[in-house]
Amino acid sequence: MSEIAQRLLAGEQRALSRLITMLERGDPAAADAMKVVDGHTGRAYTVGITGPPGAGKSTIVDQLTQLVRKTGSKVGIIAVDPTSPFSGGAILGDRIRMQRHYLDSGVFIRSVATRGQTGGLPRVVKSMVRALDAAGTDLILVETVGVGQTELGIISVADTVLVALNPESGDAIQTLKAGVMEIADVYLVNKADRDGADQMATAIIGMLHMSTITPEWSPPVLLTNAQTGQGIEELWVKIQDHREFLTTSGGLKDRRETQRKREFLEAVEEVLSQRLRNLVENDPDLIATLEKVAGKETDPYSAALEYLDSSRFSSDWLNAQ
Amino acid sequence: MSEIAQRLLAGEQRALSRLITMLERGDPAAADAMKVVDGHTGRAYTVGITGPPGAGKSTIVDQLTQLVRKTGSKVGIIAVDPTSPFSGGAILGDRIRMQRHYLDSGVFIRSVATRGQTGGLPRVVKSMVRALDAAGTDLILVETVGVGQTELGIISVADTVLVALNPESGDAIQTLKAGVMEIADVYLVNKADRDGADQMATAIIGMLHMSTITPEWSPPVLLTNAQTGQGIEELWVKIQDHREFLTTSGGLKDRRETQRKREFLEAVEEVLSQRLRNLVENDPDLIATLEKVAGKETDPYSAALEYLDSSRFSSDWLNAQ
Repeated sequence: MSEIAQRLLAGEQRALSRLITMLERGDPAAADAMKVVDGHTGRAYTVGITGPPGAGKSTIVDQLTQLVRKTGSKVGIIAVDPTSPFSGGAILGDRIRMQRHYLDSGVFIRSVATRGQTGGLPRVVKSMVRALDAAGTDLILVETVGVGQTELGIISVADTVLVALNPESGDAIQTLKAGVMEIADVYLVNKADRDGADQMATAIIGMLHMSTITPEWSPPVLLTNAQTGQGIEELWVKIQDHREFLTTSGGLKDRRETQRKREFLEAVEEVLSQRLRNLVENDPDLIATLEKVAGKETDPYSAALEYLDSSRFSSDWLNAQ
Repeated sequence: MSEIAQRLLAGEQRALSRLITMLERGDPAAADAMKVVDGHTGRAYTVGITGPPGAGKSTIVDQLTQLVRKTGSKVGIIAVDPTSPFSGGAILGDRIRMQRHYLDSGVFIRSVATRGQTGGLPRVVKSMVRALDAAGTDLILVETVGVGQTELGIISVADTVLVALNPESGDAIQTLKAGVMEIADVYLVNKADRDGADQMATAIIGMLHMSTITPEWSPPVLLTNAQTGQGIEELWVKIQDHREFLTTSGGLKDRRETQRKREFLEAVEEVLSQRLRNLVENDPDLIATLEKVAGKETDPYSAALEYLDSSRFSSDWLNAQ
């Protein structure tokens, strides 16, 4: 049995840190540890928080952490950064606010960069959540910045999804299009002291009423001011209400099963891609195909179909059109 | 031979529009057409333009188009939109400025959404560039917004990469980290009338001098004001200089060959993912594996390795670790 997993399950804080670092680096021993860790998960509750840049997500995470720490619960925070070549500075600034928790041994904080990853949430985030869970963390907060696909990927790891909005970002209808309404369990109109906060909340409530989805859970719309802490206690109540709802309805089990299935499929794709990249260095057939494509003997897409339909794959795959 | 391809090669404008729509919809007949189209490409020149939101990229594209149209050259414009759930409005606004070209039959404009795509540039953009090329377009402008991975993906389609920056975006060093300096062929500090434009240009030049890369091509740093047209003629001269440099040095051939190879590998991954998604519906083995993963009999990553190492794949793949 994996030594690091054993130490983590025994409650050793340093083992958690080390496993998470191993996961980040793609250390093969981490995969062995996760086999063991996986069987000891399911106790922690994971809350995802997403929204556009400037909605105050980090401050909300900070305030929630402070509130929950008063009860003695252990908190894990994973901040997923898009690391666009053109962002950088602003995100770093947000993180600085979290520093007061760095000295608290009951709070575990880690940032994950999405650079080089495909559209969704990096798979390593799911492994980190699992490691935190097995290590006895009670509440795991995962923060994603609303850029590209990552913000919708939060549904693949969170039990409850919070969507934070900024009243100054303008038209609520624009803000909420394209998938966000399908994943939000709780809405926060943050910076509630600014102009337009009430109107935005009213507009969201209106859209929820018009929505053709008839959910058993009606997502509440809260006005918060994370800077002052206003509305954070109510937010925590609503998170607990949602947890209660999911637990009673069986939705929590369904949601987590769906997440695990999705993660498996993403892992298959990831491993296939890795193997393909390795073949580029070593496989004479593939190298010859690449030269043909480069020399315009065939177009890239046709060559891809041809390569996959060659003997390299068993017929099960080929016939699965 | 594909009828649509034949009509496109005969110079029929409507065939170009139709093929591009077919590509967008993933029509299988488009792939057949592309086999033919591919052999008639290589004459057009492709310029990519990327940079953070608000750098004025659409206005630069608009001005370049106007300048180049005076010479009678045919222009194609492909605008790649990130379609974040939290953006929407702003990008639409940018597009409105392009309307004056919509009535010009010598200009072909199309937007492509990246929603649901993996990190890089959507493969369909590369096919569109090829279709425009074969249809006799002289200059193809591809605009990507600097969010996530898409902006670095521009190198996979462009002969010359322009990076547009906004002097108000702050620290030039932050702005240029993480891969942008490796792909930029020409820098534009746009909105040159604003405070900080000269300092930003100086900072970029300084960074280029410090850079450990010793390129045969020193990327020029231009001050432009796309609103007034200032600097656009100089930009066009620099683009032509870069083209001349690439053609003489053999760099153009190398770059295009590398792009084709990369596109082939991405197509292989894309087709593999599609097949996997289809198997989820049909393959009893895969369905059983998914249930095991959901029921926590195995962790998702281990299950993925096991599934791939089963009889489903030939040994060539398995041994390519």
